[in-house]
This record gives sequence, C-alpha cells and structure tokens, in this order.
Amino acid sequence: MPDHPAHYVKLAEKAREAANMHSVSAVLAWDQETYMPAGGADARAGQLSLVARLHHEMCTAKELGELITACEADDRLTEGDTCESANIREMRRDYDKKTKLPAKLVSELTEATSRAQHAWKSARADSNFAAFRPFLDKVLELSREKARCLSDGSGELYDALIDVYEPGVKASEIEEVFTPLRKQISDLVRTIADNGKPPSTEILERPVAPAKQEAFGKFVAESCGFSFERGRLDITTHPFCEGVGPGDTRMTTRYREASWTDSLYGIMHEMGHGLYEQGLPLGESHGQGHVESQFGLPCGEAVSLGIHESQSRLWENAVGRSQAFWTWALPHAQKHLGQVMGDQTPESITRAVNTADPSLIRVEADEGTYNLHIMIRFELERALLSGDLSTADLPDAWNTAYKESLGLDVPNDREGCLQDVHWSFGLIGYFPTYTLGNLYAAQFWEKVREENPDLDDQIAKGNFAPLLSWFRSRIHIHGRRYTPSQLCERATGKPLSAEPLVRQLKQKLYPVYGIKQ
Amino acid sequence: MPDHPAHYVKLAEKAREAANMHSVSAVLAWDQETYMPAGGADARAGQLSLVARLHHEMCTAKELGELITACEADDRLTEGDTCESANIREMRRDYDKKTKLPAKLVSELTEATSRAQHAWKSARADSNFAAFRPFLDKVLELSREKARCLSDGSGELYDALIDVYEPGVKASEIEEVFTPLRKQISDLVRTIADNGKPPSTEILERPVAPAKQEAFGKFVAESCGFSFERGRLDITTHPFCEGVGPGDTRMTTRYREASWTDSLYGIMHEMGHGLYEQGLPLGESHGQGHVESQFGLPCGEAVSLGIHESQSRLWENAVGRSQAFWTWALPHAQKHLGQVMGDQTPESITRAVNTADPSLIRVEADEGTYNLHIMIRFELERALLSGDLSTADLPDAWNTAYKESLGLDVPNDREGCLQDVHWSFGLIGYFPTYTLGNLYAAQFWEKVREENPDLDDQIAKGNFAPLLSWFRSRIHIHGRRYTPSQLCERATGKPLSAEPLVRQLKQKLYPVYGIKQ
Repeated sequence: MPDHPAHYVKLAEKAREAANMHSVSAVLAWDQETYMPAGGADARAGQLSLVARLHHEMCTAKELGELITACEADDRLTEGDTCESANIREMRRDYDKKTKLPAKLVSELTEATSRAQHAWKSARADSNFAAFRPFLDKVLELSREKARCLSDGSGELYDALIDVYEPGVKASEIEEVFTPLRKQISDLVRTIADNGKPPSTEILERPVAPAKQEAFGKFVAESCGFSFERGRLDITTHPFCEGVGPGDTRMTTRYREASWTDSLYGIMHEMGHGLYEQGLPLGESHGQGHVESQFGLPCGEAVSLGIHESQSRLWENAVGRSQAFWTWALPHAQKHLGQVMGDQTPESITRAVNTADPSLIRVEADEGTYNLHIMIRFELERALLSGDLSTADLPDAWNTAYKESLGLDVPNDREGCLQDVHWSFGLIGYFPTYTLGNLYAAQFWEKVREENPDLDDQIAKGNFAPLLSWFRSRIHIHGRRYTPSQLCERATGKPLSAEPLVRQLKQKLYPVYGIKQ
Repeated sequence: MPDHPAHYVKLAEKAREAANMHSVSAVLAWDQETYMPAGGADARAGQLSLVARLHHEMCTAKELGELITACEADDRLTEGDTCESANIREMRRDYDKKTKLPAKLVSELTEATSRAQHAWKSARADSNFAAFRPFLDKVLELSREKARCLSDGSGELYDALIDVYEPGVKASEIEEVFTPLRKQISDLVRTIADNGKPPSTEILERPVAPAKQEAFGKFVAESCGFSFERGRLDITTHPFCEGVGPGDTRMTTRYREASWTDSLYGIMHEMGHGLYEQGLPLGESHGQGHVESQFGLPCGEAVSLGIHESQSRLWENAVGRSQAFWTWALPHAQKHLGQVMGDQTPESITRAVNTADPSLIRVEADEGTYNLHIMIRFELERALLSGDLSTADLPDAWNTAYKESLGLDVPNDREGCLQDVHWSFGLIGYFPTYTLGNLYAAQFWEKVREENPDLDDQIAKGNFAPLLSWFRSRIHIHGRRYTPSQLCERATGKPLSAEPLVRQLKQKLYPVYGIKQ
C-alpha cells in the first residue's frame, strides 16, 4: 500500500507529532530520575505538566477524531488484515478512551491520587491502614466512575480498567486461568516447603563491586542482543525501561554490593523490555527485510503491559535462570566479577538462583512464589471495585489470603496490604498484567523450544540469535496489529493457559529441592 | 508591587509557559550532546523541531502581543525604574524581533545556513575558499535582508544584527573601543615577541588522568561558588553551559590527558557562565534578601552574550590565572593531580599559564592575543555585510590583517578565513561579543578590586564569596532590567573602555616575559 489516501497521511502525521511529544516527555522523565540536579525538581514538574497538557491536546484534538472517522469510512483502509486497518482500529480505541473521560473526572482523579500517594506514604510508615482507608475509598469511587465512562456496557466494571493495560482481556477470562494456577502453585510451594531440601544460596551474598556488576550486566545485555548504539543503561533508585523513541531505548538498574544477582536479573529483566522496544517496526532493520516505519502509529507500539512483561520475565527467568545460560555465562562472570566466582559450576549457580521461598513482600519474591502475590491482589482489587469487599475488611482479607496461599502470618499492614504503591496511584487493573506476563512468557518459551530443539545448545554457546529472532518475528514486529490474545494464539497456536508455567516451575524447582516428580 | 493588574499576570503566565518550553528544548539539546545513544539522532531532530515550532508559536502568539500592548498602556506598570517596566520593555523588544521576520525569510535562512554548514565543512577540509564562497554570499544576502527587517532605520545594517546578541550596542561604538584596543594589544604582542623571554610551560604538558582533572575541576568550581545541588558538569566534544531552568544549570567540558589546564580553564570558563545563570532571580535566595522569581520574564534572563562572556572570562582569566588563585589552589592541585605538581610554586604555575604567543587559530589563542582574532573578524564581517568588502577579496583581507596585527603569514584558508563555523551558521554580529566580554570583565575586575582592596588576600585564602557577591548584586540579580551599557555604567561608574584590559594584560604579561614597564 505505497500510496495512502490524504486523510490517512494526515492522520499519521498528527499521530507522529503526538508521539514526538511523548518522546519529549520520556526524555524529561528519564533525566529526572538519572541526572537532573535536585534543585531542578520544581521546574521539571512545570515542564512535564506543560508537555503532558500539550500531548493530551494533540491526542484529543477534534481534527484527529475527524481524520479517524474519514479513514474508517474508507474501505481501502479498513478491509483486510493490514497495518493500516489495525492502526485505524487502535487509534479509534485510543481516541475514544482519551475523550470519553470528562475533564472534571480526570482532574478529580489527579487530585485524589496525588493525595492518596501522600497518605499512603505516611500510613505505610506507621503501618496504619485506617489512615489510608478514606483515600483508598475515594480512589475506588473515582475508578468506578472512570470504568463506567470507559465501559462498553458489557461485563463487569473491572474489565474496563483492565482493558486500559491489557486490551480485550476480561476479568472472567483471567479468573479462568488464575484459579487453576493459584491452586497448582500453592501446592508446589507447599510440596517444596514440606519435602524439599533448600539449595545453598551463599554465592548470592558474596560482595561484588558495583562497577564489576555493571560491566558484566552490560556484557550480558549486549550478548543477548540489546543494542547500546540504540540504547543505554543507567542507575536509578527504581529500575525501569523506557522506549524514548526510534533508536533510543533506555533502561536503568541499581547496584548493591551485597547482591550481585539483583542487578544481573534486574538488567536482564529491563533488557527484555528493551529488546521488545528495539524490535518494534520503527524504521530500523532487524533482519526482517524492509519494514515501513510505524513510528507514532499503533503498529509501532507495544501491545500491552502483559506482553511487555512476558519479554522481561522470559529473559530474566526462562533464560537467565537456566543451566544453559550459566554454561555460557559462567566463564564471563568469572572474568568480570573475579575470584568470587572461582569455585562455581553452571549447576551450582543455577541451583542458587532458583528458589521458591514464601515471603511477605511482592517485590522481593522469587520466581516460584511471585504469582501468588499477584493473584491475591487481583482477587482483592476486583472485589474492592465491585463492592463485594469493603475497604474496612481489606486487611483481614489480605492476611487470610496470605495464610492460605503462602502459609504466612502477616504481622502488620506495612508488610501486608499497605506494601504496594499501585492503588494509591489509581492503578486498578494493573496487577494482573504481571502474572499474565509470566504466563505468556512460559507459553512462548515452550513454543520457541519446540520449534528450536537445539535452543539450549545455542544458548549454552552464547548464541541468542535464534531466540531473539523468534520473538522479533512473532511478537515485536507486530506492535499493536493484533490483540494480546490473538498474538498468543498466532505465536503458540493455543489460547493462554496455566499449564506451561506450572510445568516449567516444577521442572526447574523440583530438582533443585531434590524432589522427585 | 504585590498585586499586579490582570493583564500583567496573564502576560507573565504566557511568558513562563514559553520559558518552560525553552527549558524542555534545553534538556533535549543537552541530552543530545551528553548521553543520547547515537541511534536516537534522527528522532531527536524531530523532537527538537516540534518543540522549537511550539516555542516559536508561543513567542509570536497574537494574544501575547495584545497583552504586551495592554501593559504598555498601563502607567502603573511602565512608569519608573521597576522590574515590571523593564519586563514590558524587553518583552516588546523580543516580540517585535520575532514577529518582524517574515516566515519566508526565516525558512530561507534555515535552508541557506544548513547548506552553508555542509559546504563549509568540506571547503575547510579541502582548504578551498572558492567552494564556500557562493554559500557565504547567500548567507550575507539573507543576513542583510534580516537586518533590514530588524533595523529601526537608524545607523548601519550591521547594528541590527549586533543588537540580537548585544542589545543597544552599535558598530560605531564598538569601533571606538576596538580601534585603540587593537593598536595597543598589537604593540604589546610585538614588544613581548621582540624583547620578552618566554616562561617555561613544561608543567602544562605533563600528563594527568582525566578522572583526576575532573575531581580537581569540580573542587575548584564548588569552591568558587558553583552549586552542584543546582547544576552539573558532564563531558561533551564542544564545551558549553546551559541554564536549563531554575535550579538546573548544566556545564560541560572535555579532558585531554596531555593538557590538564585545558579542562581546568574550560571548567572555570563555563563555571563563570554557570554562576551567572545560578545568580539570576529565579526564586532562589542568594543572600540578597527575598527576591521575587522572575522566571520566564526578561528580568530573570541573562542580558547579553557580552555580559555572559564577561563572567566566564573573569573567572577563567582574571581569577584563574592570578597568583592569588594559585596560592590557594596549588595545595589542592597537588592533592588532586598528584606528584606531577610536586615541584611547582604559585609563581611558577602563574608564569606558565600567562602567555602571549601569536598563533593562527582563534580557539587555541591565549589571553594575550585572543582579542586580535576577534577584532579582525569584526572588521571583516562589518565590511562584508556593508558590501565594502567582496567575498572574493576575503582571503587576502584576512591574511593581510593577520600579518599586520599578529605578524603571521597565513599558509592556507583552512587555517585562515575558513577556520570558524560562525558565518556558515549565519551568526553575523556574534564575534564582537567575545571581546566585549573581555572588556567588561577587565572593567568589572578593576572596580571590584578597588571596592575590595583585600580581594587578592581573600582569593589566596580560597574565600571567593566577596567576589561572587559583588557580581551577584551588581550584575546577576538584574537580569535584563538594564541594557549592557547601563549595567556597565551602574557597576563601574564609567562607560566601556579599552584601558582596563590593556592595563591588566601589561601587568600580567610584562613581568612573566621579564619586560620592564
């Protein structure tokens, strides 16, 4: 489709302008976290707010809506499975989402979440849920209002909020996958706790200088395929990865001398996000032949948080915690990290980095138990939003769920229902995407190994190209052309299921804990 | 004036919005030079161009012009020597400058200078002035057109171009100062060449690791008063200093192992710019009592390139090359730079860093000869613009001037009239501000020492506060409230003159070269 009609060309131009504005905002935000001097904070807030306002104006401009309508009326553009038809479909989706929310509600939400964040900070410090409760009630009330505005009338309100992060996925569908998953992981964790012999993790605590960790992390990222010509790695308090724009993907991490695997797996996680961003069709060649740049258009954007998380978790867990990976990585680790690795074997490291040890804090949870934390939050926020659960009963419900799923007594709300920042930010519907990401990753991993029987051998040789190339062609190159569910079915031939993840966790963890399957 | 009329409040709001947009552009530009991955270059051009367009729209909006007109008609705002009246006067000036240029001329200039830059690069590489000449002719033709649009009809066209960089200063006034200056510096350089014994500069060539240079440079900058809470120092190919916004002033430098004074004086130069930016009344206290923030308004902006350069040259040359400075700095240099400084005394270093050695290339010139390069360019570009000099005759005119003023034969145009990037950028009228800066600096330096007879003793103790405080209250705090000439008269009681600079150069250089005065 070399010659696009004028209304499509104009629409793409407007969309690219908004995308440039978003890139500007991303640079400002990245700089704020990395290099901005402390004294610049107030002024930066003013800059970010101006850019956000201009970006919002661009995304909700009447002219943009009219151009979308004109394209929708043009059969040449909307027929068939083409980038153009997907772009128009998704631009309509974005435009409606942004214009459906009344300005009054948006500003109420901004104010309520700003207050809630402050309240949450001090409530958490004091472990005083009662002090946070009225703010959470307000956020929930406005989130219901938001969901009513966004909803198409079918299904439950929560669906409309999930849809913001994971397009087209419904709470009932998630429940169908999460229910067996929760039972099976809970059983697995209990089996390990009751019958397993924990591996030695002493190697993880040996001190390694941050500069050495950084050099090793960068070496691993580059070896896996992350381009430092088109990206960076810097230090921030809270690690993240941001696709600033074409040719500019920035990830961050943090280094603690006492925990070298924190930064290694942190980098591999962000690198997974980064490889996705670097693989989007933004006018650069990735060995896929010529691909028209979709910069600024939906087909040039990541499809969902869940699919994004699948990429980060795959590299972090499926690759980074495999024996094949350590077969290749160990000599390099010995070179970069030094003597500290001298007595290790691929087997010993692999055992140390694969554990399933129930703990109270989600962000510190291991691969084996992480999803239990998420599924508890999914169930609770869904009930909070529908009104089935009152915020007054949240701490009890939280603590009961932790006892049931993880076998733990929650000693206080700071380590319980006050531990996460998400609800105070109004991010209802966000949590499930973490576990969806793990599920997608496991299902993709099973498929890519099925299609590449020698994948372990390749990884053990440090050849990550077959793996990356599979993701480039099955996931990255499509952007938002297909929904997450469609992508999953196209890539693996099956709808999302709990089985691959459970199978993989058992395969990894049982041998480590000396449990026969 | 606590309660401003509504039109002034609204005007200030619009101006601050434009200033925020300018800050955004500054962050993008800084990032481009420091940390942006190479692959992000194309996308960055698009971001910068979008932000520039939006900034231009804000600065030329009809509403802004109407608000300025409304304020001009309000005697409460325009009467007396107040910040408000200065802001309105300067906003009118800016608005008219930006709206007087027809869009067609602006885009022709953009295109012509873009082409000229490319042509200049290859012409310089080939030392082939003829290849650059048609592009220079085009730039000159459009610059004349630009000057005609900006001119108030009085004086010569060149005045209108100088006025962009040095408000209110005329070519004839510059000539009046430059003519005696050129003669006197030329004589001084000849006297030194004929009768002087050059000092040993061997210490300047001793290798020092970049990390040590950086630590020492930062220590010096912080000691002089540069706040790293509200600023940064990074590495770029071409050093600069940028006031990003309130609390955020970023300077850059470069390090060469073989020349540690390059980075030291580079940092002190940019730090001078940075201290000016950090001293503007942007809502932060500098011991001047409460000062209302003028962020976004002219009184919160640097007044001219010449005054800006006076601050950088003062710290670099008057302070940094003084024996008082080295009396304080040497022990710290010995600590930071190590053994290499072991055999030095304040006297030996001071001698080594004060030279007057005629050379062909402006950017490598020493303090003694630098202004000769500038004055040659002033004379030539003035004649080129008026048409008194044809571009065909430029190389000859250049070479003749270098022979006369510096006693040098120019071997080729690469080291002659093709050495500078300025003309290809269309920066006609920019060069004189370099020497104006040196002149202002010398005149300020004379006055601050007259008012602080123990200034040398204070500097020798590392107490830079009296010096900085003088500049804070005489220059920085005023922003654009007064014109550069008014500022000079208010601070020193006299109009700008060549004498202080000539006196100071003789006082510094004659003893170094063993010449009796």
